[in-house]
Amino acid sequence: MTDEVSTPGSVRPGGRTARVRESVLRAAGDLLAERGFAHLDLAEVAAKAEVGKTTVYRRWRTPTGLVTDLLTDMAEQSLPHADTGSLLGDLTANARLVAKTLTDPRQGRLFQAVISAATCDDSAATALRRFYDIRLTEWAACIEAAIKRGEAPPNTDARAAIAAVSAPLYYRLLASGDPIDDTAADTAAQAAVNAITAGTFVTTPESRTAG
Amino acid sequence: MTDEVSTPGSVRPGGRTARVRESVLRAAGDLLAERGFAHLDLAEVAAKAEVGKTTVYRRWRTPTGLVTDLLTDMAEQSLPHADTGSLLGDLTANARLVAKTLTDPRQGRLFQAVISAATCDDSAATALRRFYDIRLTEWAACIEAAIKRGEAPPNTDARAAIAAVSAPLYYRLLASGDPIDDTAADTAAQAAVNAITAGTFVTTPESRTAG
Repeated sequence: MTDEVSTPGSVRPGGRTARVRESVLRAAGDLLAERGFAHLDLAEVAAKAEVGKTTVYRRWRTPTGLVTDLLTDMAEQSLPHADTGSLLGDLTANARLVAKTLTDPRQGRLFQAVISAATCDDSAATALRRFYDIRLTEWAACIEAAIKRGEAPPNTDARAAIAAVSAPLYYRLLASGDPIDDTAADTAAQAAVNAITAGTFVTTPESRTAG
Repeated sequence: MTDEVSTPGSVRPGGRTARVRESVLRAAGDLLAERGFAHLDLAEVAAKAEVGKTTVYRRWRTPTGLVTDLLTDMAEQSLPHADTGSLLGDLTANARLVAKTLTDPRQGRLFQAVISAATCDDSAATALRRFYDIRLTEWAACIEAAIKRGEAPPNTDARAAIAAVSAPLYYRLLASGDPIDDTAADTAAQAAVNAITAGTFVTTPESRTAG
């Protein structure tokens, strides 16, 4: 968390505003993780954050406003892509990071809550798409590096390739309920590498393998 | 929908009960798709289904009771696995079916609603896991057939392989918001075939490929 805040609606820049934002977003995240988006209440967030109710209402306005800013903060805080020197190494690091996040008691519940919020609220959905856009763009650099090293074919769709690593882990969290462990993470990374090296994510159809 | 109902709490078996269930579940599905789980109201479901409120309260008790029975019905109604004679053909059929379901205006919203319900309600989560368990088991037969034909290595984890086909499409629906089209479906199927044939889903670690 930096000491500078440039969020629209910020009353004044600098230390106190940043501290207020940090407290409010931590409280909002805790309450989301505990009880979900449907029960997110601004007055309760203010009380938990020990911040004036008026400040929270004026600055974030709605539960969606809080979720949107929380997702912006999560994107700002999230880790840069790995650089292990190999495609499998980088994608395994990504898969392990996703698995660690989704199985962390607070973070896992928080992701479920914001994904759930996005299913019923367009602004939350836009903020969620932006969060994944930032993450997918950040990690796309691993695919670009692999193309330069000759480990991945030119014109590999880096976004689709990175999404392929996370997708099976999110499917376990949200759909099947199957365990999200290191084996699941490593298999997700390996499967993505298999498809990348086979040229399945190459965007020009004529250079895609047939089977 | 059969004419026989064996749901626990069913007042009497036979035609009328089955018709009541059909009407109520259709109304519940419509309202879930329109407004989400948080706003699912039993009295409103009863009114929309043109069924007595008492019947709905007695038989389904809670919004979760409705979602659970709806997921049971969705599993009962869902299509059997493809049998095209090839692994890529079967998995492409599966991916296209998932893509069609998730992009159908009513069905896509309905899946978002039940997945959202599962994030904040343990009974809904159990019902959702059971739904995916039934679907993954049904389609696992395609992997078993591929093993018999020599298209997939022995000891391929059929459940993980089938989940790999759906996962990128669910990730688009729930996380990235990227389009769910035939290209996305075909790529998901092809990527799963790449990983299956490379042995990435083989459950005995010593027979798994290293890269």
